[in-house]
Amino acid sequence: MAARSLQNFRMTIEYEGTEFNGWQTQGQGCRTVQAEIEKVLKVLFKKKIHLAGSGRTDAGVHALGQVATFKAATILDGETLRKALNANLPEDIVIHTVEKVSPTFHAQFSAKGKIYCYTVLNRSFRSVHTRKFSYHFPYLLNITRMRKAARLLIGRHDFRAFMATDSAQKKTLHLKDTIRAIRHLQIRKKNDLVSIEIEGDGFLYKMVRNIVTVLLDVGTKRLEPTDVKHIIQHKDRQSIGATAPAHGLCLHKVLY
Amino acid sequence: MAARSLQNFRMTIEYEGTEFNGWQTQGQGCRTVQAEIEKVLKVLFKKKIHLAGSGRTDAGVHALGQVATFKAATILDGETLRKALNANLPEDIVIHTVEKVSPTFHAQFSAKGKIYCYTVLNRSFRSVHTRKFSYHFPYLLNITRMRKAARLLIGRHDFRAFMATDSAQKKTLHLKDTIRAIRHLQIRKKNDLVSIEIEGDGFLYKMVRNIVTVLLDVGTKRLEPTDVKHIIQHKDRQSIGATAPAHGLCLHKVLY
Repeated sequence: MAARSLQNFRMTIEYEGTEFNGWQTQGQGCRTVQAEIEKVLKVLFKKKIHLAGSGRTDAGVHALGQVATFKAATILDGETLRKALNANLPEDIVIHTVEKVSPTFHAQFSAKGKIYCYTVLNRSFRSVHTRKFSYHFPYLLNITRMRKAARLLIGRHDFRAFMATDSAQKKTLHLKDTIRAIRHLQIRKKNDLVSIEIEGDGFLYKMVRNIVTVLLDVGTKRLEPTDVKHIIQHKDRQSIGATAPAHGLCLHKVLY
Repeated sequence: MAARSLQNFRMTIEYEGTEFNGWQTQGQGCRTVQAEIEKVLKVLFKKKIHLAGSGRTDAGVHALGQVATFKAATILDGETLRKALNANLPEDIVIHTVEKVSPTFHAQFSAKGKIYCYTVLNRSFRSVHTRKFSYHFPYLLNITRMRKAARLLIGRHDFRAFMATDSAQKKTLHLKDTIRAIRHLQIRKKNDLVSIEIEGDGFLYKMVRNIVTVLLDVGTKRLEPTDVKHIIQHKDRQSIGATAPAHGLCLHKVLY
């Protein structure tokens, strides 16, 4: 029997980041989303299969629409694979879709953009029902001010100031490598929940969470909306407070 | 110094039912919401304080607005008590409000009604983000049919058929004791989530979850909308399938 040719499969993944050390497979004893799915793929295909994600998510960050690809020689269709995967994955990971894609499709390099959503619980006391998926911020936020600042962030800018100070990237990147375009940045408030949805062509390490830090500081009047311009122009990381915590962040969608 | 007179306090409570054996204090080794709060009240007031809830919720049922009262001799105001309680309660319980109320106010006997919400995830594959607060029901629901049945449930009826078969209540209740009024019953669909909101003057044991069972059976055409009339009239518990699981149910509000 002739060997079956390798098929390229694309999957969309929902996960809760709480109990994971992020997306990317690391050393032994480190629970990651990629490693959990690769473990099941190995059982299904009886060999090691590499899963290539659209990008990493940090420890604690959630996803509703992470995308990853893997190659396998199989006659099984996507729907059958999805069911087999979901039946074997832990309760904090679920696969929404599995489909055959062109051999040239790559979850990371074919991506045209990403949509993240950051959720803030803005009231004096904590929540039980939303506690795993929102950051409890007890100081009253002025949404109008935050929206003013958001408008100044939209567009193509050098976001070097918003990159994590501990980023290994930072030391090696040239100036142009830190230029990114933010296409949309929408702030919505529903009862006590404030959601910050941000779409860009790509994001630097911890860039979304540092943008949230700045927006919250504008919302509490620690910063003026126009300070955003200064921070961008002067690549001024020092004006930005501590990075907003991971558990408020969710990767909603990868755009192709 | 004269002994301080007892104050009557009313609190509103949010909890996740997952890790509780329901609301009501039971024997040793049984984790209940009432017992957890009473434990903290005992620490704060250095004596045993009884907490009287608006009613029990079963193991696994959640609440956003459970109401309970307790009496204590204290100069502390409600806001201070709320903060002290929340600082000492586990992460699956939080108190929204504590306020002084008239000595005659009673969480259970002063209640004029309750609003429950049942959440169904209606898609073929499970969810991660909503898994603790929704019942995964994979068979396609016809919402129009469900709304027709819902309209027939609204009003004052003998809901004996919807009471749990294992109810100790059932054996001792006279006919009139199983008459309840449903004031509103609204079914909403947003993406894959179907929410069933139901307001009544009171509910029999497991009545809401048995109503959900019937509505789901109507939604999948196992029952006709008009079968609801028959079930009510003939007090026909046999036509109702297995009680819908607890983790989809949430006590939203107690009305006074």
